[in-house]
Amino acid sequence: MEFYGYFRSSSSYRCRIAFNLKGVEPHFRPVHLKNGAQHDPAFKALNPQGLLPALVTDEGDVLIQSLAILEWLDETHPNTPILSKNPVTRAKERGFAQVIACEVHPLQNLRVLKYLTGDLGLDEAAKDAWLARWLRDGLEACEGLLAQRDEQSEFCFGDTPGLADICLVPQVFSAERFGIPYADLPHISAVYAACQSLSAFDKAAPKNQPDFEA
Amino acid sequence: MEFYGYFRSSSSYRCRIAFNLKGVEPHFRPVHLKNGAQHDPAFKALNPQGLLPALVTDEGDVLIQSLAILEWLDETHPNTPILSKNPVTRAKERGFAQVIACEVHPLQNLRVLKYLTGDLGLDEAAKDAWLARWLRDGLEACEGLLAQRDEQSEFCFGDTPGLADICLVPQVFSAERFGIPYADLPHISAVYAACQSLSAFDKAAPKNQPDFEA
Repeated sequence: MEFYGYFRSSSSYRCRIAFNLKGVEPHFRPVHLKNGAQHDPAFKALNPQGLLPALVTDEGDVLIQSLAILEWLDETHPNTPILSKNPVTRAKERGFAQVIACEVHPLQNLRVLKYLTGDLGLDEAAKDAWLARWLRDGLEACEGLLAQRDEQSEFCFGDTPGLADICLVPQVFSAERFGIPYADLPHISAVYAACQSLSAFDKAAPKNQPDFEA
Repeated sequence: MEFYGYFRSSSSYRCRIAFNLKGVEPHFRPVHLKNGAQHDPAFKALNPQGLLPALVTDEGDVLIQSLAILEWLDETHPNTPILSKNPVTRAKERGFAQVIACEVHPLQNLRVLKYLTGDLGLDEAAKDAWLARWLRDGLEACEGLLAQRDEQSEFCFGDTPGLADICLVPQVFSAERFGIPYADLPHISAVYAACQSLSAFDKAAPKNQPDFEA
């Protein structure tokens, strides 16, 4: 299995956490996002969208989009499941993950930030206000979903980490990186701390990747 | 079952197609996005994110995010499946759906367009350029994914419509609405035409909804 990712890409980070939880070790193929390596013809032949991550299975199938890769991984490596067996709980786990993947992350993507400061000519303060608006809005929505739970638990939806936690941790990492406060959101802070104590999450952190750059 | 949606919301449109394919008829609760009804406290108590769609099951569980609702629907109503049984094909269907749901749709969302013209003070031409960039980029990525298929088929991934088609049709509808060309993308045009000939898709179209406004 070959995994194309980048240390700071939060969708790559999601996949790394799941690989660690499952004990899967794909061969890592770094794609330097900041240098534009995702636009190389060789990579675009794999993923026409020119975005990370991409996974090439042992059979040579190319899978893209982190949530699709995570679901495939859970279906083909059912040890340490990352989704509940209960359809309603699964829907809540997926809905939470999608608040991050479909509503927050796309607005902080490198290509969108580049459009803001390049094509639109916004200054850093306007870019920071954009990030603050969407990241904070998304974290508050996540906090609301956690507060709504029938039963409180150590992780987002249960006593073991799953899809929601896998998406939350890289998003909180991004919030820290962009200076967005979240300490006043008690459920998120508690889940984040619980995840950070696990080696599967720590090993997946950007600073622990072979392509890390300070 | 109660479904909270809006005729022009493309994520509501996705769910409507799936309800029709499955023969499910939830009670429709319109939420007037343009009038800001999604910010009403009663709706935000259901969905803290204040976004559509939301589904309340017969047991009273509240599900949010269209892709999570679609997966729940497929798991609990397995007739007329919208995902393949093959894990790799499922991953390709989900990956395609997520190109739209995680990379294109968030950038054309009403709240983001309002931010562009409101907070950022962009004019209509700059807003249109933003839409053209991200919608066209996404449709080209989708075209590339369809061109990559091992076998060509009438629908995105097979001879019956599924999750990818359910996401593609509302996105093409949005492209038409925003004046983004796609006639030069042959695979997308062919799948779109095939879907439009089916009553499940036609019945789900914005113009056929009870809350439709010209």
